[in-house]
Amino acid sequence: MKLLLAGSFDPGEEDVWRAALQAALPEATLLNPAQAQQAAPEVVAAIVANPPPGSLQGLPALRLIQSLWAGVDRLLADTTLPHGVPLARMVDPAMNAAMAETALWAVLSLHRHFFTYAAQQRAEAWQPLPQRRADEVRVLVLGQGQMGGTAAARLAQQGYAVSGWRRDGQALAPLLAQADIVVNLLPLTPATRGLLNAGFFAALPRGAGVVNLARGAHVLDEDLLAALASGQVGHAVLDVFHQEPLPAGHAFWQHPQVTVLPHAAAATDPRSAAQVAAANVRAVLAGGEPAHRVERARAY
Amino acid sequence: MKLLLAGSFDPGEEDVWRAALQAALPEATLLNPAQAQQAAPEVVAAIVANPPPGSLQGLPALRLIQSLWAGVDRLLADTTLPHGVPLARMVDPAMNAAMAETALWAVLSLHRHFFTYAAQQRAEAWQPLPQRRADEVRVLVLGQGQMGGTAAARLAQQGYAVSGWRRDGQALAPLLAQADIVVNLLPLTPATRGLLNAGFFAALPRGAGVVNLARGAHVLDEDLLAALASGQVGHAVLDVFHQEPLPAGHAFWQHPQVTVLPHAAAATDPRSAAQVAAANVRAVLAGGEPAHRVERARAY
Repeated sequence: MKLLLAGSFDPGEEDVWRAALQAALPEATLLNPAQAQQAAPEVVAAIVANPPPGSLQGLPALRLIQSLWAGVDRLLADTTLPHGVPLARMVDPAMNAAMAETALWAVLSLHRHFFTYAAQQRAEAWQPLPQRRADEVRVLVLGQGQMGGTAAARLAQQGYAVSGWRRDGQALAPLLAQADIVVNLLPLTPATRGLLNAGFFAALPRGAGVVNLARGAHVLDEDLLAALASGQVGHAVLDVFHQEPLPAGHAFWQHPQVTVLPHAAAATDPRSAAQVAAANVRAVLAGGEPAHRVERARAY
Repeated sequence: MKLLLAGSFDPGEEDVWRAALQAALPEATLLNPAQAQQAAPEVVAAIVANPPPGSLQGLPALRLIQSLWAGVDRLLADTTLPHGVPLARMVDPAMNAAMAETALWAVLSLHRHFFTYAAQQRAEAWQPLPQRRADEVRVLVLGQGQMGGTAAARLAQQGYAVSGWRRDGQALAPLLAQADIVVNLLPLTPATRGLLNAGFFAALPRGAGVVNLARGAHVLDEDLLAALASGQVGHAVLDVFHQEPLPAGHAFWQHPQVTVLPHAAAATDPRSAAQVAAANVRAVLAGGEPAHRVERARAY
């Protein structure tokens, strides 16, 4: 069984993935893009992590494109992506858990004033702040897929007053009006791009917390900076940005109301993700459907 | 029913407590220390929050001393405290929950590198760090009372590999050797004072995290600073100190490996704590035992 492995990996990262995939699929031969072109008629599946555009052309036997990442917005932007081949997102239980941890940490940090205490420490200021119970803090989770659902469940388990929203569900503005903290875990699609804009922030209660763990392009940065400046948004926790790494000198870096994370809210874990990818490859080769197939019309 | 209310409160705090207690015990008259001395033969219970030493003398009808705080180490240091009167600690469900939230936030912050990311943000450095699963992180909770038990349960719910220790239980050193993060929630007693010393830190794996949410006197500060300097302890989260507020210029304030909180890990919530105090007053006046009675021999 010949598989293409193609992606834009950090140094050392490709070797880790190659080893994990080989362990999960011992019968497979993992080819790089140049090798795959040589063996094109025999390449039955492609396992990809933001591959260079065009990598998946000229593979007539391809029966599955398996993303190693949960977000497929960059992959779908490749206009040369073969149309007839099923495309699967990665749904990695370890990544879901990591995302829920980051969401919970951000909510705890906002609820219990831990960002404020960190600023107080740098100023050597000792000032305990009022304490609310978790059930007095209303958290709205945008996105009710694998990641949004897991995060919402963990937050509810801690006693928060959690509500959820999905794009094809109820009206958003009334939910925003009742949210002390909003956590974005939506997929990036044409319908959700720029959702976190001036109107969105204006619909929140004054001083609300905003946590974006999804994609930078969900947010209009200038609108967020204006909402922070006016106090309409009290604090933002941002893991994702229009340009990554966040450019030097960007206003978010030194902003006292912004917590910047380096796209580290949740990494796919090669150990569990390789098992998920292997199961999908085997399912497709046995004539079945891959799990978590992307619907290209809705873009996730 | 005449009750003494005596304590060292922050500005405005005494009024909040007085209102909550009056609502929970509408039949009671709440007296301050001077009023109580005037009505001494009729004062049946004292509700106290670190009262000035000597406040509880000369009250012959006293049948209960109810602390509003969970820790009674300062109260027990008052040598004039009447000996025959039952003394009860506060066990407030809202405070237990708040303490578990802070423990969970500290463990998430250490596990997921959020303190490091905060330092990176100030340096405008973008560097994602390796991600471990929660079950790969071993957390040792010292203290298995109401607070330690609640914190351990919440941490286990998030998937951490949690173990617990109580002073009269198994040997501590072997547990420390297996702890990536240790969370102190012990009562301060003559037996636990100074427990977090050079030997304690040396028994941990190199680079371990230390979270102290109990009392400052549990820690030998110079030993902790030495362990941080050598890298034996990677990071410390400290909510409590030998002197509070933490004095200006103390080495902890600007230490890059120390997170300072202003004794804010968990406040007693007057709404729920007043109900607990009221139930204890009524139980004692009905001839029963108060809940969470302090055993003076063991000092908690």
